Amino acid sequence: MHRLRKPYLLFLGDVQDKLTAKTAFGLKDWCADDVVGEWSLPGCGVTLGLPRLSPQQAAARGAGSIIVGIAPTGGTLPAHWVAELAAAADAGLDVVSGLHTRLTSFPELVQAASRRNVRLIDVRHGERNYGAASGRKRSGKRVLTVGTDCALGKKYTALALAKNLKARGIDASFRATGQTGIMISGEGIAIDAVIADFIAGAAEHLSPDNAADHWDVIEGQGSLYHPAYAGVTLGLLHGSQPDAIVLCHDPSRQTIDEHPDFPIPGLRVAIDDYLRAGRLTNRAMRCVGLSINTSSLSDAECAEYFQRVTAELGLPVCDPVRTGVDVLAAALLAAP
Amino acid sequence: MHRLRKPYLLFLGDVQDKLTAKTAFGLKDWCADDVVGEWSLPGCGVTLGLPRLSPQQAAARGAGSIIVGIAPTGGTLPAHWVAELAAAADAGLDVVSGLHTRLTSFPELVQAASRRNVRLIDVRHGERNYGAASGRKRSGKRVLTVGTDCALGKKYTALALAKNLKARGIDASFRATGQTGIMISGEGIAIDAVIADFIAGAAEHLSPDNAADHWDVIEGQGSLYHPAYAGVTLGLLHGSQPDAIVLCHDPSRQTIDEHPDFPIPGLRVAIDDYLRAGRLTNRAMRCVGLSINTSSLSDAECAEYFQRVTAELGLPVCDPVRTGVDVLAAALLAAP
Repeated sequence: MHRLRKPYLLFLGDVQDKLTAKTAFGLKDWCADDVVGEWSLPGCGVTLGLPRLSPQQAAARGAGSIIVGIAPTGGTLPAHWVAELAAAADAGLDVVSGLHTRLTSFPELVQAASRRNVRLIDVRHGERNYGAASGRKRSGKRVLTVGTDCALGKKYTALALAKNLKARGIDASFRATGQTGIMISGEGIAIDAVIADFIAGAAEHLSPDNAADHWDVIEGQGSLYHPAYAGVTLGLLHGSQPDAIVLCHDPSRQTIDEHPDFPIPGLRVAIDDYLRAGRLTNRAMRCVGLSINTSSLSDAECAEYFQRVTAELGLPVCDPVRTGVDVLAAALLAAP
Repeated sequence: MHRLRKPYLLFLGDVQDKLTAKTAFGLKDWCADDVVGEWSLPGCGVTLGLPRLSPQQAAARGAGSIIVGIAPTGGTLPAHWVAELAAAADAGLDVVSGLHTRLTSFPELVQAASRRNVRLIDVRHGERNYGAASGRKRSGKRVLTVGTDCALGKKYTALALAKNLKARGIDASFRATGQTGIMISGEGIAIDAVIADFIAGAAEHLSPDNAADHWDVIEGQGSLYHPAYAGVTLGLLHGSQPDAIVLCHDPSRQTIDEHPDFPIPGLRVAIDDYLRAGRLTNRAMRCVGLSINTSSLSDAECAEYFQRVTAELGLPVCDPVRTGVDVLAAALLAAP
């Protein structure tokens, strides 16, 4: 399990557009209290609007880590960023990256980290051996976000739901399963990077026994309908043993992203498939509602769509960005 | 992908019972033509009935590898075997193991292998990064063995089916996904040891495009009903894109092995679940028959059971050990 040292200094390199810096924007949105400032190279075209601090200045203000908040094309770390990250290590900061390129592949960084006894943390990689799942029922309550596809709001929905529950005074924890989620939370397991035999075991490890009224809100990954990633999705579902699922969907997609031969099923079918699969490890599992990414719809279209889905499924429907997740939290807390 | 150097010398260490040496017996059964002899330490209580050859003698007869054909409790390599394996490396043999303990963790072995430029191959571990599955339909035909549980005959059934097809003059390949299968075949991928994101990708790699009338007979892993391993099973199913599945079952089991809270479903339900899940990547997938481990049944019980299952499902039923797999091969080769 990754455990990061907060607060953070967010590093933007010299990127030119907000989309490439979306991890940094996500951190600013979801854990602003854990961020002391931003830092970038000359020529960077993006700012988060945060105080500009050098690694030395950030360290002086108590920062624990510098975060590479960038997802450049190909996922590789540009070589000309390395000297700046080595300087951050020399200033006493842990260096955290979610890129494919491992920080430990740069001798200059390894030496700097060794000199100051700080850590180089590749949240995409991490530990891989968790042991096989036991299937044992754990105490406490769990909700998992699942999806008709990848990249349509499972992380956002889980973060919004955990925040909403806490605001109601409910004891709740966001459980991160992907790199950005881990950075936001400060801990978690990159579930798609563990050894195949231990997917469900890692998921069990991520949400251990807890108080009877505590809710773990677990970030989903992949989709049962994705030709490459359904195994990860199923293992996470089984190990999480969720009492409840929230189905995430984007009505503008007819097929799986980048896989035009793979149609996305209807919502009723998807809910039934997830429940049938998930009830292997929690027979009481239910679907408490839908989280819809309505960014492609007008207000009128969205209202019409929500009305239609509610009528068809008899379940609460929301868009975390447009409407918030109050209806999901209420459904979760209602007696089953 | 592991690729081993045949023929083999089978090493038995100093084990006392056949069960612990079951990998060696499996190799003798399934690839006898690729085995030059056996070797063991003083006090060993097991023999395969093969010529007893020292590593030097085996090398002189053209052996390419010494195989640790043992699965001791805990999966660790006893330290007092290491000197003998180092001597085998010094004799010019690759050293191959399916144990958890990595051969490369013994400096004495690493040095010997380096001296003679031979390989230390841990088939349980192997490569882990295969890239994500594309979902693209491949040429050639594929059959995958699937199961209601682990360890009930998926490997044996696949081996028997590949052998039967070849005896009929059909162009067929056994595709190994576990350590013993890899040793028998001489190549394959330990599918449960790859990174979670790449399960289906590894399965695609294992059975590439082939001639239109070629059959890949793919060794299944795990079970959709196993709380720990269903993710591996699903990823292998998706990446294999099988045209046909054979369901393997042991009627003496009511629940998943070592998981008494997890009931094994009925055969009709299991077939439907596998077909529903597998049709994501091959909509024409069908179940061609059942392979039943009837070791717990008398002849009369077996006949009665087969009659009942055939009547219920309308599919051919066999036990590879008791009856052979002719009916499965015939069903596979029948139209469509």
